[in-house]
Amino acid sequence: MPFKHFFEDFPRGWTYESGTRTLSAAEITAFARDWDPQRYHTDEAAARASPYGGLIASGWQTGCVAMRLMCDGYLNDSSCVGSPGIDAIQFLKPVRPADSLRFRAEVLEARASSSRPDRGVVRWRWDVLNQRDEVVLSMLGTQFFLRRSTVGIIG
Amino acid sequence: MPFKHFFEDFPRGWTYESGTRTLSAAEITAFARDWDPQRYHTDEAAARASPYGGLIASGWQTGCVAMRLMCDGYLNDSSCVGSPGIDAIQFLKPVRPADSLRFRAEVLEARASSSRPDRGVVRWRWDVLNQRDEVVLSMLGTQFFLRRSTVGIIG
Repeated sequence: MPFKHFFEDFPRGWTYESGTRTLSAAEITAFARDWDPQRYHTDEAAARASPYGGLIASGWQTGCVAMRLMCDGYLNDSSCVGSPGIDAIQFLKPVRPADSLRFRAEVLEARASSSRPDRGVVRWRWDVLNQRDEVVLSMLGTQFFLRRSTVGIIG
Repeated sequence: MPFKHFFEDFPRGWTYESGTRTLSAAEITAFARDWDPQRYHTDEAAARASPYGGLIASGWQTGCVAMRLMCDGYLNDSSCVGSPGIDAIQFLKPVRPADSLRFRAEVLEARASSSRPDRGVVRWRWDVLNQRDEVVLSMLGTQFFLRRSTVGIIG
């Protein structure tokens, strides 16, 4: 397995910040038609009449932007073997077409797995920011990573 | 606004259970290529060699299935005006191609908004189950709904 990054490479305090990604109005409405067809995600006119005053991205899509920027930034080169879950997703600001989004990660805690000696457990803060440096989405994620020292054994 | 369901229609203990939805292998890999291109979501052969032993859906896609079934089931006919966030998303079981998924919702708490008298706040448990009645994803969500009694004022 040609992993570049292992559990040992994500100590407490490790940070990452991505480049930017925008969602066009067409990308927002296409995603929403598939997965979250509420009127303020799918329909410009209905969105203008809603409390948001215009089209906004589904929070699920903003979370997906975070996931994609994470994958491209470091996760796909890592020994990550999954996630038990995500806590405290906060949708803090609306995301509008052409907002310039970026992803920021910080390791809050990194510890050995108590049940699986080949793995470590990393707790993260993951934020999505816009072009005004406002945090639009914030969440606390947990992921499992294989340890560098044991990949020879399990690989 | 032609809403059928308002805050008052979602009291504590209200439940909903959807029909079923499957994700094909092609739908799993297409979603993952866009949003979560980890090897066990995008590549059958790499997935077989991973700890999952085969292709599994991105947890984000399973969450999106919940959202879509919720929208189709009751949300799009409701006065929902958004969500401040989701707590405690748990990815409990892998979701594999052709698993028969369904969505279950239960109101845990319904209260008037302290800051916006035209709104109520509903706290939910949202689960996704498979054909073996296993909960594959569980989460706690919060949503805001307009109150029936005030729509005449704000509509």
